Amino acid sequence: MIQTRSRRAAQIASPPPRGTTSAAALPHVVVVGAGFAGLEVARGLRDAPIRLTVIDQHNYNLFQPLLYQVATAALSPADVAVPIRSLIRHQNAHVLLDDVVGVDRTARTVSTAAGKTIGYDYLVLATGCVYDYLGHDDWPTLAPAPKTIDDALAIRRRVLLAFERADATCDETERNALLTFVLVGAGPTGVEMAGALAELARATLVRDFRRIDPTSARILLVEAGPRILTSFPEKLGAYAHRTLQELGVEIATATKIEKIEDESVVAGGERIAARTVIWCAGVKAGPVAAWLGARPARHGKVPVEADLTVPGQPEIFVLGDAAAVKGPDGKDLPGLAAVAQQEGRYAARAITARVNGQKYVAPFSYRDKGTLATIGRSSAVADLPYLKLTGIVAWLFWGLVHIFLLIGFRNRAVVLLNWLWAWLTYGRGARLITGQIEKSTEHCPGVGR
Amino acid sequence: MIQTRSRRAAQIASPPPRGTTSAAALPHVVVVGAGFAGLEVARGLRDAPIRLTVIDQHNYNLFQPLLYQVATAALSPADVAVPIRSLIRHQNAHVLLDDVVGVDRTARTVSTAAGKTIGYDYLVLATGCVYDYLGHDDWPTLAPAPKTIDDALAIRRRVLLAFERADATCDETERNALLTFVLVGAGPTGVEMAGALAELARATLVRDFRRIDPTSARILLVEAGPRILTSFPEKLGAYAHRTLQELGVEIATATKIEKIEDESVVAGGERIAARTVIWCAGVKAGPVAAWLGARPARHGKVPVEADLTVPGQPEIFVLGDAAAVKGPDGKDLPGLAAVAQQEGRYAARAITARVNGQKYVAPFSYRDKGTLATIGRSSAVADLPYLKLTGIVAWLFWGLVHIFLLIGFRNRAVVLLNWLWAWLTYGRGARLITGQIEKSTEHCPGVGR
Repeated sequence: MIQTRSRRAAQIASPPPRGTTSAAALPHVVVVGAGFAGLEVARGLRDAPIRLTVIDQHNYNLFQPLLYQVATAALSPADVAVPIRSLIRHQNAHVLLDDVVGVDRTARTVSTAAGKTIGYDYLVLATGCVYDYLGHDDWPTLAPAPKTIDDALAIRRRVLLAFERADATCDETERNALLTFVLVGAGPTGVEMAGALAELARATLVRDFRRIDPTSARILLVEAGPRILTSFPEKLGAYAHRTLQELGVEIATATKIEKIEDESVVAGGERIAARTVIWCAGVKAGPVAAWLGARPARHGKVPVEADLTVPGQPEIFVLGDAAAVKGPDGKDLPGLAAVAQQEGRYAARAITARVNGQKYVAPFSYRDKGTLATIGRSSAVADLPYLKLTGIVAWLFWGLVHIFLLIGFRNRAVVLLNWLWAWLTYGRGARLITGQIEKSTEHCPGVGR
Repeated sequence: MIQTRSRRAAQIASPPPRGTTSAAALPHVVVVGAGFAGLEVARGLRDAPIRLTVIDQHNYNLFQPLLYQVATAALSPADVAVPIRSLIRHQNAHVLLDDVVGVDRTARTVSTAAGKTIGYDYLVLATGCVYDYLGHDDWPTLAPAPKTIDDALAIRRRVLLAFERADATCDETERNALLTFVLVGAGPTGVEMAGALAELARATLVRDFRRIDPTSARILLVEAGPRILTSFPEKLGAYAHRTLQELGVEIATATKIEKIEDESVVAGGERIAARTVIWCAGVKAGPVAAWLGARPARHGKVPVEADLTVPGQPEIFVLGDAAAVKGPDGKDLPGLAAVAQQEGRYAARAITARVNGQKYVAPFSYRDKGTLATIGRSSAVADLPYLKLTGIVAWLFWGLVHIFLLIGFRNRAVVLLNWLWAWLTYGRGARLITGQIEKSTEHCPGVGR
């Protein structure tokens, strides 16, 4: 303790605390968003002669690819999130928990919800994406999407409560509605959620309930497109389709969601009584284009130059899901962690080069390392550059890659331990109903504090 | 999967689902509250010729003694909670997630918030306690207490946000108020919280912040009584006092909290600007006495007979923190997990004996196995029947006992892993600010979704 304290004292004594009002001559890099892209920028600038400020609306970096496991009670939030401060603690960085609300390109400042104005020499906007509810303002409440930790916990609460209430009710119609789960969108998130939900019901909860049969839960995956996992090769999509069906998931392709209401959805002209609807459909960029006065590309993304900067604003980079970056095939690069990370590393290199007076920076190019999606216990699909894998081999590969990509020894060890335990026992360790509980209907048990 | 499904089908086919409306001739035992006492009753009745219904307002059994570690970002909620259903899944038990709101002793029914009426032959009320805010209705919001998971997460959020906002503000007076933490009550909970908070600030957060010095955080433990840990021998209390002071905790004994306001407290006539106040003072029983029309003993507890039943109602047991049970010294037994568990096991034996036609049941007697409180890294006090321990020996003993008392292999392994990691790295793995964030003041960063 005493050692820690004196180390600290020395630290404080030598370099004066730096901030936006500091007169330091070093160029100031402001990174907005500490997701996959933003974190790589920050880390890549560790040894650059700059001052760094990282602004995020959360105090943690979230490992999105495993968030569906929080929503389905397999992992805890802290297993997939690491405080931003601790990730860049060895750098001369200032971390600010705040919401950016605008950019002034002339004055070169960003303004925040708390009323701060922060000047920049280089600005990196890596604000990610939000789920696109296609203009339906009431749908986010009716059908939460697994995007933030709070959303994932809300989904977990709704799913677990649905089983509890189905067990408590005496009304069969209501029980069926409670045991019907509709997932909208069969991309990787929808497929992974569907598989995890099916296993939660059929392998874990089946042992916990006596009055209801959790295996009778109806899990319905609705996709507007012609098949599931459209971003994967057809063969892998077909494999995933069969595997999900074997897990008991109903799949309706070429089916549009027309309405989402309190107790039902209308899909493909049919009304389905369902108390739990989970949104896994398309995403769109946040308000970055509006901040920059740019004309948004598809999905609200900001079109960028080959060096990931905004046309006419070489000091502003847009990265990750917020940016429309053309791949070699002329299509926008997909919204993958690998894309964001590579862009982040590139931007750090580009900023370092420019700060060091280098004029030309080679354009960004994406190295495709493949994509993965897990379908359930011992089953996944892997679309790798020279290899397509399915089944347990793909699943083990998926697991290894994700453990490796997780940040920090503790999270890796805890996730591995949870997975081993779940695999051996069919258990799911985080089956807790926490947070404010949505109102129950007449036939259901009310739940208070 | 197919195997699981057929096993389930067989299970459903053989015994009809039992419920409160079932005509089964077996006596119906209703247990309200699945804490330490209630869970022991339920488990102790596994082989008894009865039907069992367990009602709880949460879907999990909470290991209260480690909840302060959730509040101080060392553990996740799922590490200290296990779903009730999975704990008694091998019994013929019905689990109901609901709030009991009343008891009709004549009709022998309990009524719930969801409008259910459930008949009983034996009723076990093990509803625990709530924090006693001494009649101040606004204090629970101003000064949350570490009692439920949601409370613990609210405390975690406030503590971590206070450091973030202190880092962001330019106003020194405000920064000092944000870095002042007042803990009310120096029983085991207050002492453990104070030690954990001091370590969070001085060993963990110290590495994360550059503009503020987390070691300058003022942690003030306020106790109305003449010394801390009054339930422990004076020598152990004095040791804890010294150890806390070494950790940098200020202790004010014989000091009453007079006011708690939005941004300050008044204690011992002095106003202290503090943005975070945590309530760790006395507890009281829930509304059990009112349900039973009984005249409450101290702290709202229900006085019970030597067999833990209510006078004149031999079919109603009251256990744990809800019951006033006299110890050999004539004083009420303390609110300890060990007391609740022993009472639970006793009640299960007593009910089994009575159901089996046995007339006489020996009275309950408590075997004191000692009490423990941890003060910080490598330091604790242990008041054992023939032994008083302090320091690292007590701390190791504390750790061993708590790992042993935790339920389930997964939770034991995860908690042990987190502790080892924290001990080796001074890290705390659950430093996440989640949930709805309290409004910020002008000088602080506003935080949204």
